[in-house]
Formats: sequence, C-alpha cells, structure tokens
Amino acid sequence: MENNGVSTTAGKVIRCKAAISRFPGKPLVIEEIEVDPPKAWEVRIKIVCTSLCHTDITFWKSEPPFGIFPRIFGHEAVGVVESVGEHVEEVKEGDLVLPVFQPHCGECRDCKSTKSNICSKFKKDNLPNMPRDGTSRFRDLKGEIIHNFINVSSFTEYTVVDVTNVVKFTTEIPVEKACLFSCGVSTGVGAAWKVAGVEAGSTVAIFGLGAVGLSVAVGARLCGASKIIGVDLNPEKFEIGTKFGITDFINPAACGDKPVSQVIKEMTDGGADYCFECIGIASVMKDAFSSSREGWGKTVILGVEMHGSPVSLNSLEILSGRSVYGSFFGGLKPKSDVPILAQKYLDKELQVDDLITHEVKFQDINKAFDLLLQGKTLRCIIWMDK
Amino acid sequence: MENNGVSTTAGKVIRCKAAISRFPGKPLVIEEIEVDPPKAWEVRIKIVCTSLCHTDITFWKSEPPFGIFPRIFGHEAVGVVESVGEHVEEVKEGDLVLPVFQPHCGECRDCKSTKSNICSKFKKDNLPNMPRDGTSRFRDLKGEIIHNFINVSSFTEYTVVDVTNVVKFTTEIPVEKACLFSCGVSTGVGAAWKVAGVEAGSTVAIFGLGAVGLSVAVGARLCGASKIIGVDLNPEKFEIGTKFGITDFINPAACGDKPVSQVIKEMTDGGADYCFECIGIASVMKDAFSSSREGWGKTVILGVEMHGSPVSLNSLEILSGRSVYGSFFGGLKPKSDVPILAQKYLDKELQVDDLITHEVKFQDINKAFDLLLQGKTLRCIIWMDK
Repeated sequence: MENNGVSTTAGKVIRCKAAISRFPGKPLVIEEIEVDPPKAWEVRIKIVCTSLCHTDITFWKSEPPFGIFPRIFGHEAVGVVESVGEHVEEVKEGDLVLPVFQPHCGECRDCKSTKSNICSKFKKDNLPNMPRDGTSRFRDLKGEIIHNFINVSSFTEYTVVDVTNVVKFTTEIPVEKACLFSCGVSTGVGAAWKVAGVEAGSTVAIFGLGAVGLSVAVGARLCGASKIIGVDLNPEKFEIGTKFGITDFINPAACGDKPVSQVIKEMTDGGADYCFECIGIASVMKDAFSSSREGWGKTVILGVEMHGSPVSLNSLEILSGRSVYGSFFGGLKPKSDVPILAQKYLDKELQVDDLITHEVKFQDINKAFDLLLQGKTLRCIIWMDK
Repeated sequence: MENNGVSTTAGKVIRCKAAISRFPGKPLVIEEIEVDPPKAWEVRIKIVCTSLCHTDITFWKSEPPFGIFPRIFGHEAVGVVESVGEHVEEVKEGDLVLPVFQPHCGECRDCKSTKSNICSKFKKDNLPNMPRDGTSRFRDLKGEIIHNFINVSSFTEYTVVDVTNVVKFTTEIPVEKACLFSCGVSTGVGAAWKVAGVEAGSTVAIFGLGAVGLSVAVGARLCGASKIIGVDLNPEKFEIGTKFGITDFINPAACGDKPVSQVIKEMTDGGADYCFECIGIASVMKDAFSSSREGWGKTVILGVEMHGSPVSLNSLEILSGRSVYGSFFGGLKPKSDVPILAQKYLDKELQVDDLITHEVKFQDINKAFDLLLQGKTLRCIIWMDK
C-alpha cells in the first residue's frame, strides 16, 4: 500500500476480499469486491482485525425489510488509514484507527452537550449506506451494490467510513485488544461509568455475561461497586466472570419457582442499586427492572431487542423512585471518551484481555459465528492477514 | 376541644362525622363514626378542609381485592393537631399540620439519602390501616372497622395519622391553599424541580392538565423552561393553563392522523427535553415517552395507572439516550421539602391559588366527586365546618 509515503491505491478502486451476507441467517461467503475511494469527509481503512458482536447476529438473522441484504456486517474492528477524502484532516494515511458505529461530529447540539452521545447531525437509523450521500462504496464483481452495516462494515479487507465514525487510537495497545474498544468494552464500561454513574459501595446486577456484560462488571468494579451479581443461564460464566469483577452468580434455571428479581432482592436488602440488561430480550429487561431497588434503583438497557418487542414495565413499580435508561455505546462520546478508557487500560485499571477467547483467520469467519451462536466464545478475533 | 390549654378529648374516643365509601364507585355516605385516640407515634388531627384528587377516584372505583371497603378516602388536607400519642414530640396540640401519604421517618437509609424519598422503614403498599400495628382507628356505630386510605383518610372530621406522615405547616398561608401542598402542588412542582431537574431554556411537554399537571408547569416555569406544552383533550384547559405557565397547547383530538408525539417533535426540534405523564393511562405514558428527545429526553411518570396496566416502551427508542423516571410525591421529602415550597409560595414564586375552582360543604362531598369526574374542576375544597 505504501510507496515512499504515498499510497499507491489512493484515489483508485481497490479490489479485495469481503465476507458477504446474502441471505438472512446463512453462512457468509468470501468474495472479491470493489471498494470505491473515500468521498469528501470519508476515510478508507485497511482492516487489521475485527470481531463478532451479538448485534451483528441480530441483524444477520433478520428477514427483510428489517434485515437488508446483500450486506457486509462487522462493526468492531481496528484498522490503518489507507487514504482519506477531501476535507479530512483529523486522520491521515497510516494512522491506527477504530471505526465506530456511533457518530461523533463534535459540532451539533448533542455533541456539544455533556448530556448526550447521540450525534444529532448524523443519526444512525439502521441506514444501509454511507451517512452523507446514502450510497454504498461496495460492489461485487457483477456490479451489484453490497450494503453497509451501521456506518462500519468491517468484515472486509477494506472499508470506507465517515470521518465522524473514526477514532484515532493509540498504538501502545496490541491491535486485537484495541479492537474491543470499538464496541463491546466501551459499551459495557461506559454504561456503568457514564450512564449509570455507579457509586462506590453500591450493588449491581448484570443480566447476560457476554463481552458487554462482563465489561459492565469491569466498569462497575472501577467505580467501586461492592457487590456485582452476574445473571446467566450458562453456569460456566461464573468462573470467567470472577476475572472481571463478578462477586456473585445467579443461574435463573436453578432458582426453582423463585423469580430472579426476588433472589436479587434477598441478596441486596431490597434490590440492586443498578441493573443492566446486556442481552436484548424484552422479558429480561423487565426482570432487570424488577430487580432494581425502590427509591433510587436505576436500570440501564444496553441490549438491542432481538424481536423489536417493547419493554414492558410495571407501572406501580416505576412510581417508587425507579428509573430506566437506554444507551448506545455506553453513553460515550467516541472521540473524547474512548481515549480515556484506553489510558485506563494502559494504567492496568481495565481488564480486557480475557475477553478474547478465540482467534480465527478471515477465511474461517463462519466459525466465529458458530462459536458465538453456541455461547462458546466471548470475543473471537478475526484476523484479516493471517 | 380546648379547655385552658388542655384538650378535653385527648385520650378519649371521639364520635364525629365521616364520609364513608362502602361500595366501589357508589356515592359516599356521611355517617357517625368513632375515632380512637392516637397510639404511640400517632397524631389525631381535626381536619379543617380537604380536597379530592384523582388517586382517590382511582381507588374508589376499584373493585376488590384492589379496592378495599368500607373505607374513608381523602389524602389531601390540612388540619389542627387535637392530641398526640406517646413519643410524639415533633408536633403538639393546636399545631397546623398537613397529613401526607408519603412517609418520612428521617432515620432509614432512604430518608438519609439525597437520592430517595421512598421511606424504606414505612412502605405504603396500599395498606388498609395504620402503618405500625396494621389496625384501624375508625369504627362505625355498629362496631364495623372502617379502613384507612394511604396513611391519611381525610374525609372525616377527625383522623389519626402516623407522625411520619405529618408535616408541620406555616399558618401564614390560608388553609385552603395550604391544603393543596399536601399532595397535588407538591407532586407536580416536585416532579419538575426534583425528579426531572428541568433546566433553564428547556422544552417541556405535560400530558394532562389537572391540578398535578398544572403544578408541573408551575415547577417548570420556576426552573426557567422556555416552552411548556400542555396536552389535554379539553380545549378549555389552555386558557387556564396560561395562568400556570403553559405556553403552547395541543388537543390530541384535533391533530388528525398525526400522533401527538410527532406534533411535539415538530414544535421542539426533535422532541421535548422533559415529558410528564399526569393522568395514569398506559398509552399516554407511551406517548409521553415517544415525545421525548433523543440524546437526553427524560420522561417522568406521575400518574397511577388506572387499570394497573404496564408501561410499554419502544425498546429501540429508549436506546437512543432516553430515560424514564417514576415518582411519588414529586420526589420530595415531605418534612424538609414541603416547607421550601411553602416559602416559595410566600415569596410569590409559586402560582397555586387558581387551582381552587370550587368549594363545597362536607355534607356535599359527592358534588366534588361529580365535578372531578366531569372534568369541571381542578381542585374542589371540601370544608369540614362550613
């Protein structure tokens, strides 16, 4: 790519390999595609490694019109800038970057407010293509448009991302670890730190101990929580969970007739101060809410509901001083907050490494899907060049 | 009652008149009852005036087992202490007090926390009787127990209230105005001030312009909100509303096919910063939530859902940085916060007077029910001695 400091591919269409999802729930197919050069305010990135998150699975399983095909999934990745479009000054060729689904323009009312991380200039409404002009940068060799996924599309050797979706990242962190800051770690740690504002000495209940749920535990421990209860149907998650700060474990299947919320109320003298739903199931959101304490119990919803079902809350329970928050990307502003988390990692305050349980070559990307679907992995790193 | 500074009734059963509700939804019947003396930590109060709130209506309409009969309703009132039980030092005979449904013991973890107003020592779970020993202080002349209503029961010449449910009040405010601080004014103003923390220059949408909704407007104006939208099916509420700070009005019946949430989004550049549900209808709670802004929109639920239906929230809408709060009594701690509101009233910062639209004698209490059911009154003062 580099030649005496000048990219030989800049301004040209790049032909490369991508894992294309052509039908809902069917294995991805690695094909040659063409990737257009970045337009104004866009950045073309050579992906170094990427990983699979449950949100990819949710959309990959979805039938049209909610599901959009053919599409290149993937939104947790790290890469190197190959070239930039007009007006892009924030990053340059060769920079290590995280593509991030959450836009951060820095100029709109939301980006300027300390209260919001939902950029109002660039909304992400499951758009199938680039945010500024609505077109795609991907085509297969027959000329058919391949759609983008939530501003990122990282299951390809090269992708094009708007500059509002790019975070310049430190090279001091190994790339496969850096990759996790692009979604899972930030979403979980941010939910505990920024959204809930977990206080020292408080009690926390986390529903779903995947990479996001365990990152909530990391964030809660960082904030000084004294009791961090993990709730998961897989009993193996408890041992893993202790590495991330989980102090107590509940397997709902082993509670008999007693609702999980009752078990949590008994363990916490009336309910947890903070509850987190990290799966995306409406009934679990309800359980999380019912497990929160009267007076000041906060429930944070992180999971994207798999079936689009509404959250149903007992109207009397909420009156007793409870509250429910939703957040994308842990309430973090990508460009300013992710570097703070990176520094905490370098200072050894954030446990991230053990989230990586598997690594595969790009050509074996469907193995990553199988592992996640079977609940056998937290994060599986997919290496593009190995 | 008084005789050289000594109550002649202290320690004795008092025979007096009460408006008894014997069957769901049926007119109250004024009967003679017997009121026991206050036990330890209790206060017997001679009610001066009381008023009718929608929460009385909700429980009065409810069939058993949710509805409990025979019962003495009423929970917004002002009175004078007739006598006190053992250990009561906070108030004494002759003090002007508000009986308040929300307990405030001052000693439990919640009362000591700045985050909660849900006293955890004395929970109010629609208990039919006195909080400490579970018995009633009311009997009819046949000896049948008459049940208490949410710690207050003010539709009687004399009632007995736990000391945790008593707020000593200033005599500088006319009693009929003081009465409203016992529930409606505090609930509404507190929701804007304490629960939502309305910020200067912000936009507010209030669903339901009864006494509570209008008090939310008063609180929002006090906090400096720039746009306060009132939503009500009764177009006459707009003119009344302007007196309390409502700047814009929406009649959902006049919006055609356009959802109210869409109208509010267009009026507020994307949604109101703060939305308040002051009716108690699950579908309106959902509308209020959908009218709140992405990024930081807060919805506060004040209404007790009339049918016990759950609140149903779009699970994707909440992820975009929205939140939902519930509160009783406006998130206020009765004994410490109500005097602050009283001072604001004396400083002419709080508009309360125009909430009183009707006044009736105690013997005409059913007229107050008719007026509220017909939507013809905000607050109807029921005078015990006139």
